[in-house]
Amino acid sequence: MADDRHVHCLINGVAADQVSVFDRGLQYGDGLFETVAVAAGRLLYRERHLDRLRRDCRRLAIPEPDPEVLCREGQELARRCTRGVLKLVITRGVGGRGYRPPERPTPTRIVSLHPWPDHPQSWRTNGVRVRICRQRLGGAAALAGIKHLNRLEQVLARAEWDDPEVAEGIMLDTDGRPVEGTMSNLFVVTDGVLQTPHLSTCGVAGIIRARIMELAQVMGIPCREAVLEMADIGRAQEVFVTNSIIGVWPVNALEERRWSAGPLTRRLSEALMQDAAGPSAAQLW
Amino acid sequence: MADDRHVHCLINGVAADQVSVFDRGLQYGDGLFETVAVAAGRLLYRERHLDRLRRDCRRLAIPEPDPEVLCREGQELARRCTRGVLKLVITRGVGGRGYRPPERPTPTRIVSLHPWPDHPQSWRTNGVRVRICRQRLGGAAALAGIKHLNRLEQVLARAEWDDPEVAEGIMLDTDGRPVEGTMSNLFVVTDGVLQTPHLSTCGVAGIIRARIMELAQVMGIPCREAVLEMADIGRAQEVFVTNSIIGVWPVNALEERRWSAGPLTRRLSEALMQDAAGPSAAQLW
Repeated sequence: MADDRHVHCLINGVAADQVSVFDRGLQYGDGLFETVAVAAGRLLYRERHLDRLRRDCRRLAIPEPDPEVLCREGQELARRCTRGVLKLVITRGVGGRGYRPPERPTPTRIVSLHPWPDHPQSWRTNGVRVRICRQRLGGAAALAGIKHLNRLEQVLARAEWDDPEVAEGIMLDTDGRPVEGTMSNLFVVTDGVLQTPHLSTCGVAGIIRARIMELAQVMGIPCREAVLEMADIGRAQEVFVTNSIIGVWPVNALEERRWSAGPLTRRLSEALMQDAAGPSAAQLW
Repeated sequence: MADDRHVHCLINGVAADQVSVFDRGLQYGDGLFETVAVAAGRLLYRERHLDRLRRDCRRLAIPEPDPEVLCREGQELARRCTRGVLKLVITRGVGGRGYRPPERPTPTRIVSLHPWPDHPQSWRTNGVRVRICRQRLGGAAALAGIKHLNRLEQVLARAEWDDPEVAEGIMLDTDGRPVEGTMSNLFVVTDGVLQTPHLSTCGVAGIIRARIMELAQVMGIPCREAVLEMADIGRAQEVFVTNSIIGVWPVNALEERRWSAGPLTRRLSEALMQDAAGPSAAQLW
């Protein structure tokens, strides 16, 4: 976390840790968020996170935050942080009449810094065990891809296990098709082709998911979004999950199926590390 | 609203209007709520609201609030209120690790009093115009029926219109079947039979919905939960919507279809009024 005791949360630019109980973020989950990795004071994939946040604000008709302000506030918190997690939350603010949004909402802007999760280093190199969650992902197309504040399905899915050896749970849609992990996106490699579930009805369109697909293209690895079945995971030669904080975790076990961290997974993981480090070479994973 | 200036919000029993920004209610919509009508200082259908809240807490594995405490706090706010809306919110509180809930959550309990909405009286007697929302209801069975804090679909649906003559919007599931209104449950009467959509995959199992079904049974009106199609609404002789605040609103127009407030709707509306008034005869609607 931060190296010394300083402000860890800004609400609309002011050091604080309380919001109105009537904020629509609490009343209805009416808002969205970003989870940004911080390394050596730098916000990784900052522009991508800000772009997605603003695009998703437009989709929900929440006034977009000023990216410069958000960026400045994020940097202010992250300034002395060696390694941490910066969370940006935008809600539609207070007001409106029941579900009906106010005509001119005044969004609430919350920027907070959190400790880096202490996952075992071996999870990055040797891979992780994952499970299949009973909790399904519902969802209507209008919300698909958006990292919004309605996360009860993920909460219930993550509550299904407490075995510390199980790193992640795969969530299926209501038709039983794999979509993503509770906190990550899912990729499979089959006969040299990289695939990730299409997110047309549910799921979060992760920043790292998008970047992995771009890197694959640059590296000449065929890659596509597809409607996957559980059987496609079983017959895949490599499986991995991604997010902004974990980077790439190879999957080495799912129920009875075993894998070792495969060659394409390793190549993409290393490419992502170099890409994320950027010119400042802020090593994270 | 309340007749004089006194406390309108209690958080964990203390007069306050701010919660931690790290409350899981805000971070994930990890909680649920009740909307209770207040008449002459009395909480209408108090026991039913408390029962549902506790049952839904159990379904989400949130520790149940003490009903006596909740009741006392509700009564304290409602004491001098002639007509108002009492909202009870229970969240899983602060803590946990990401989506993963804390092992022993300390729920946040929010009780707040709000003004009675000033809907035209004619809506109760002559009925309301409703529309069909484009926003669909997704949803996985585990959350069906629960009045949880993940309400973004309702917010987006309610944002679709600002015509003050349109009182409510009907929401369809992802298969195009009518489920409920944005803030109400839906009933149709066809050839003397009362039907309301089954809530097996999405929707809120309203207190008034349940009470209307019970009253229908007592009155010898055949009543059933059913999978309805849009065509079933079109061919119905009567249509109405219900919730704890509006009671019963006959529907008199949906797109090009017109109805007048029908005889069964009137009988059920009157029966509900008498039932809600109870021994103290606190007239509400």
